[in-house]
Amino acid sequence: MFPLYGRRAGSWSRLLVVSSVLLTSSLCAEEPNLDFLTRLRQEGLRHSKVMETFGELTDRIGPRLTGSPAMRQANEWTRDQFAAWGLANARLEPWGPFGDGWTVESAAVRMTVPDVAQLYAIPRPWTPGTGGPVRGPVAWAVIKTKEDIEKFRGKLTGKIVLFGDLPENRAGPKNAQLTDQDLDDLFHYQIPSDRDDARGEARKRLELAAALREFWVQEKPLAVILPSRGTDGTIFVQASGQAYLADKHDPVTTLSMSVEHYSRLKRLVDRKQAVELELTVATTFHPDGLTQHNTLAEIPGTDPELKDEVVMLGAHLDSWVGATGATDNAAGSAVVLEAMRILKAAGIQPRRTIRAALWSGEEQGLLGSRAYVEQHFATRADPSDTEELKLPKFLWRDEHRAVTLKPEQAKISAYYNLDNGAGKVRGIYAQENLAAAAIFENWIVPLKDLGVTTVTRRNTGSTDHIPFDSAGIPGFQFIQDDLDYMTRTHHSNMDTPEHVKREDLMQASVVMAWFVYNSAMRDDLLPRKPLVQPAPAGTK
Amino acid sequence: MFPLYGRRAGSWSRLLVVSSVLLTSSLCAEEPNLDFLTRLRQEGLRHSKVMETFGELTDRIGPRLTGSPAMRQANEWTRDQFAAWGLANARLEPWGPFGDGWTVESAAVRMTVPDVAQLYAIPRPWTPGTGGPVRGPVAWAVIKTKEDIEKFRGKLTGKIVLFGDLPENRAGPKNAQLTDQDLDDLFHYQIPSDRDDARGEARKRLELAAALREFWVQEKPLAVILPSRGTDGTIFVQASGQAYLADKHDPVTTLSMSVEHYSRLKRLVDRKQAVELELTVATTFHPDGLTQHNTLAEIPGTDPELKDEVVMLGAHLDSWVGATGATDNAAGSAVVLEAMRILKAAGIQPRRTIRAALWSGEEQGLLGSRAYVEQHFATRADPSDTEELKLPKFLWRDEHRAVTLKPEQAKISAYYNLDNGAGKVRGIYAQENLAAAAIFENWIVPLKDLGVTTVTRRNTGSTDHIPFDSAGIPGFQFIQDDLDYMTRTHHSNMDTPEHVKREDLMQASVVMAWFVYNSAMRDDLLPRKPLVQPAPAGTK
Repeated sequence: MFPLYGRRAGSWSRLLVVSSVLLTSSLCAEEPNLDFLTRLRQEGLRHSKVMETFGELTDRIGPRLTGSPAMRQANEWTRDQFAAWGLANARLEPWGPFGDGWTVESAAVRMTVPDVAQLYAIPRPWTPGTGGPVRGPVAWAVIKTKEDIEKFRGKLTGKIVLFGDLPENRAGPKNAQLTDQDLDDLFHYQIPSDRDDARGEARKRLELAAALREFWVQEKPLAVILPSRGTDGTIFVQASGQAYLADKHDPVTTLSMSVEHYSRLKRLVDRKQAVELELTVATTFHPDGLTQHNTLAEIPGTDPELKDEVVMLGAHLDSWVGATGATDNAAGSAVVLEAMRILKAAGIQPRRTIRAALWSGEEQGLLGSRAYVEQHFATRADPSDTEELKLPKFLWRDEHRAVTLKPEQAKISAYYNLDNGAGKVRGIYAQENLAAAAIFENWIVPLKDLGVTTVTRRNTGSTDHIPFDSAGIPGFQFIQDDLDYMTRTHHSNMDTPEHVKREDLMQASVVMAWFVYNSAMRDDLLPRKPLVQPAPAGTK
Repeated sequence: MFPLYGRRAGSWSRLLVVSSVLLTSSLCAEEPNLDFLTRLRQEGLRHSKVMETFGELTDRIGPRLTGSPAMRQANEWTRDQFAAWGLANARLEPWGPFGDGWTVESAAVRMTVPDVAQLYAIPRPWTPGTGGPVRGPVAWAVIKTKEDIEKFRGKLTGKIVLFGDLPENRAGPKNAQLTDQDLDDLFHYQIPSDRDDARGEARKRLELAAALREFWVQEKPLAVILPSRGTDGTIFVQASGQAYLADKHDPVTTLSMSVEHYSRLKRLVDRKQAVELELTVATTFHPDGLTQHNTLAEIPGTDPELKDEVVMLGAHLDSWVGATGATDNAAGSAVVLEAMRILKAAGIQPRRTIRAALWSGEEQGLLGSRAYVEQHFATRADPSDTEELKLPKFLWRDEHRAVTLKPEQAKISAYYNLDNGAGKVRGIYAQENLAAAAIFENWIVPLKDLGVTTVTRRNTGSTDHIPFDSAGIPGFQFIQDDLDYMTRTHHSNMDTPEHVKREDLMQASVVMAWFVYNSAMRDDLLPRKPLVQPAPAGTK
């Protein structure tokens, strides 16, 4: 019906690619299969099911905190949905150990003095409840260093602590598509900054967090209230560090409060006005969270020579709990599900196996995708430096960690990720892989009328393509329109379907499917960057 | 120290003005007293207390629903503050009968099926509580006409009713100052539309509301939830009609819910998903609300010939309950207080008496200012048409209502009101009074560097200058920058101090004081429009 098998270079060319970034296998550009793209567009833009999928994840299942019953429900529902669409090997793959599950049963905060008012505050994940209503006076404390703790010792017992200064007043929400100028800026390569500063800062933060935990245990305030950044009642709320571990849960009830209500309390305190609050927070810890799961499903390869090779696409299924995780990342998950559906519906017979993954544990540090990569592709030793060992894993440097590749690592072509909000796809980050970028330039030509125009050679971080990249596997994240992701929805109580456009999810599904299709059909694996490894002993 | 007494025309000229709009007393423009304006600016822009005043009203006293204890507290605090600044005759003037006071003690709404989620909803004023937690399934109903009621009879008992379609998706918030173009548009006169349509619509709404009340009494749903307009969790909430009257309180617990949460419920219902909510709403009715008060205070006139005449300024002190009534209208109230303070501090010896008024009952239909005008200046008979009698008072036409003037009506020069949000003053509505407009044009010349540039001859309505206008008294409202008044704060849970700029309140205080000063010092009363009266019998 349409050309399934094109010219195929020998496997020697792939070996060459793996061993060198100076050669690429795409010296001759392959012609895009526009017949198949037409099919994808028909299915994805005219018979879309992406909003139904998205609605199940957000409206029905709700927030999907890793470890929670809703996370399990989302894993199972997506597995069953993949299977219902006729995809192969729909399954849950376990990983762990994670920690406790956690859910909010109810949360209400009232001012009782000097005025009665309902206040907007959301419990921070893995915070304990109050065990019924508790009432107490508020006290303000700002603790920025370990030394600051002593200033407040003995003064906060039995109080409800307003913790810290209001966050810097950031610019308000813009709800914006990327302009040509934005995309041009993004195209131009920016030499990355050194990460040593970030590592130093992170270490200080970790030390302060540990000291604070100890302080709260001793000081016994009734609760701690953090001021959220944001405007218009928006509350950003996420856990700190590894709060999912039983020994790192918040020691006292901790909530994030909207800037409007926090400011009111703070202004009253500044005016020496007595202020009292009543908190009623009920949360549940679920001890069955140690084993978590990623959802996977496949369209098996059909080329006898290539069917053992895979192309992967994915997004994280888990979310924080302020709202229903609509833009972070039910949107990306729904697009991955839809991309698989339309590839199947368009009648693909892929040469390589196509495998979709919906990760859990992303919000706690890419835990699900890291575990998957370790299980299948590569492991890295811990760094030998004891100071580095104290840092969170994501700050360990690959150049300090010996790598052990597994056989599957040689069989995966690429991993495509979607997790920058719900905006339309405008291009892709080539993650400094120039040979892959050249190939992508060719693939996006017929996507111009869908708004896809930019292949930037820049890196982007902080989501599930990173573990693949670290394992020497081409891993990519798409460029998406910002909309109001960073100003309004990201980890907030406003991460709701109102901020997601049907048209954008439909477009993204087609674009993601097209990248996957081309990766599955081309003669060769995607070209690779050199694997980052520790220098051999004796060199530096 | 500065010229207190200027040229004074005989009282005959004022009589002429009253009897005819064709003559004005300001054929020769009087020189503005720039020395005094400098004093006002020094006091108002460099030694302002407006934000302290504003903070007391909003942060400490909180929302000021007419009839509530906080309303009384605001009346008393403002009276005492006027007195503390040395103003004369600081007092509360009673009016009534009003109705019941009402406060919210607590309000929590949770989804319990299919997901556990805290939802944002605010009880509508004068709604009863739930008497502890109530749980039930939701059902959706849309009732736009009396006939629609029958479709739902018997189907909503014991349910939590999602009432109606989502409101039309309005454009999102702009946070905007008026541009030169906006002001130019506003300057150009627009012939008012006929109000008959509005009267017809209002009558239908009243009939539907009455029928619905009866329906809810018979049908006994657990609660009724209304979808708010707005974005980003903003909830607009106000009472319907005369809900403050004992026989017109909401018959069942009624709440307004954010569009995000209402939409989630509605989408689930549309997908035939069972949805259950738990509501815990506690409200209190205060039976001591029949007598309400306006706060008044004065700077006595010093000219033996003119001290019995008054110039008034005012704003309403009451608010709705979604937030602390910051822009509607603690801002205007704080400006009125501050205008009086800086007039006094600047050492004014006014020829006429200056009287500030802080109204209650504005949000229920200008009740406080209407009562004041009736007590002091003019009464109007009810219309004879029985159909018109059924309409709310604000839709009765002055030309159908015989007027009886009181002696004080001849002794008041003007009333200046501030109630269009918290934005900077950009000019004034001359309310179709061309002679007054010509005078104002002269007064605003030295305010240009404060951004005051526009005297529009247009009418504006819906606030406390209207009862004065109806009594034949020059009553004016200032033009203010929109900011995000109509899109975000007006009657919403986001009517908080974050939407009020210190600089704008300071500017407005100086501008308002300047208009009052000039009115108090000029030789003549402000020119008047012809009094609107029923045509003499036999004419039409």
